[in-house]
Amino acid sequence: MSDRTRIRRIPEKAVTDVATLYAVLDAARVAHVAFVHDGGCVNIPVASARDGDRLLLHGSTGSRLFRTLADGAEACVTVTLLDGMVLARSAFESSMHYRSAMIFGRPTEVEDKLVALEAMSEAWMPGRWATLRAPHARELAATMVLELALDEWSVKVSDGDPDDPPEDLDEPVWAGVLPMVATFGDPLPAPDLRGDPPLPDYLADWRIGIVS
Amino acid sequence: MSDRTRIRRIPEKAVTDVATLYAVLDAARVAHVAFVHDGGCVNIPVASARDGDRLLLHGSTGSRLFRTLADGAEACVTVTLLDGMVLARSAFESSMHYRSAMIFGRPTEVEDKLVALEAMSEAWMPGRWATLRAPHARELAATMVLELALDEWSVKVSDGDPDDPPEDLDEPVWAGVLPMVATFGDPLPAPDLRGDPPLPDYLADWRIGIVS
Repeated sequence: MSDRTRIRRIPEKAVTDVATLYAVLDAARVAHVAFVHDGGCVNIPVASARDGDRLLLHGSTGSRLFRTLADGAEACVTVTLLDGMVLARSAFESSMHYRSAMIFGRPTEVEDKLVALEAMSEAWMPGRWATLRAPHARELAATMVLELALDEWSVKVSDGDPDDPPEDLDEPVWAGVLPMVATFGDPLPAPDLRGDPPLPDYLADWRIGIVS
Repeated sequence: MSDRTRIRRIPEKAVTDVATLYAVLDAARVAHVAFVHDGGCVNIPVASARDGDRLLLHGSTGSRLFRTLADGAEACVTVTLLDGMVLARSAFESSMHYRSAMIFGRPTEVEDKLVALEAMSEAWMPGRWATLRAPHARELAATMVLELALDEWSVKVSDGDPDDPPEDLDEPVWAGVLPMVATFGDPLPAPDLRGDPPLPDYLADWRIGIVS
């Protein structure tokens, strides 16, 4: 095995099927949105949800940066899920399991804000939208929702076993993968909760994206 | 209560103490690094770890984008931890608990690569470095480690209870916070594991950053 082969260390692959893109976006709740501002890049975390072939980005009309983004900025939107630690026999071969999607484009304001808000709510809190009162006009006016077409994107996935070279296999250390698993903790009722409403049944079905 | 007051919806605060910055960076394993490339922003996920007053970024000399970054690019590095869902009585007041740090600066190659690699290994896999063989020269040559001074930064934290206006408090829905908790799943031994080495004791102490 040549040195060149030996340092092909990254069990990472580019993925081109749209189903994987969708799965990554659906498993995340926050995207990092980078765009040029004042001559440099800013990189803001934005609540995000996929709706069909668009990524929805939720912001406030009160946010100067979000308004700048909405003003036609070209953006690079990246979503990354960390799925585990890869413990190889050497530090060099150790790595992380992850899934990452990168999307390029110019987000624009949605024309169907109420539809988009319901889609985001259902992505983040499935089952809850139908139990909530309708948004007020002033709330809709204070909310800005952008959409980004899923046209130009790439996805990378790292999900392999440790890839140690043969000469390291007798190193006296445990090696393997430690998956990362995320879930919800116990619900904490609001201090001003009135009337002792029951915990919604749909909570039992919720999952966090990091679970692979 | 005026409409203006009522739509002050974000229980989010800017935090200026460096201890909170450090805590956010220490709880994360991946940073999103945005920088100008070919006239626009690219936004790449990078394994990151804090070491004193610098953020270390781990990459490969084989990565074109990482080499571009190392070449003096001004970067905006953002780390975001999602800590929970805030279920308010309305969709509008619903939000997420998060902690986010944004750092501006020009990452440069470290001069103490071996020290930096140990710091990163101990941040991601505490206790393991001392049990692994020393890195080979060719491995060090293939690894690129950048450092970013923690000089220009901002931190935002959202951790409040639902902040519903009085007229919504009798809405017949449960409200509260659903914390997000992350942990490790069961270790998966490498298929080529030899000699039945025991699971390391230090695994019991590992935690994932998302846990708040």
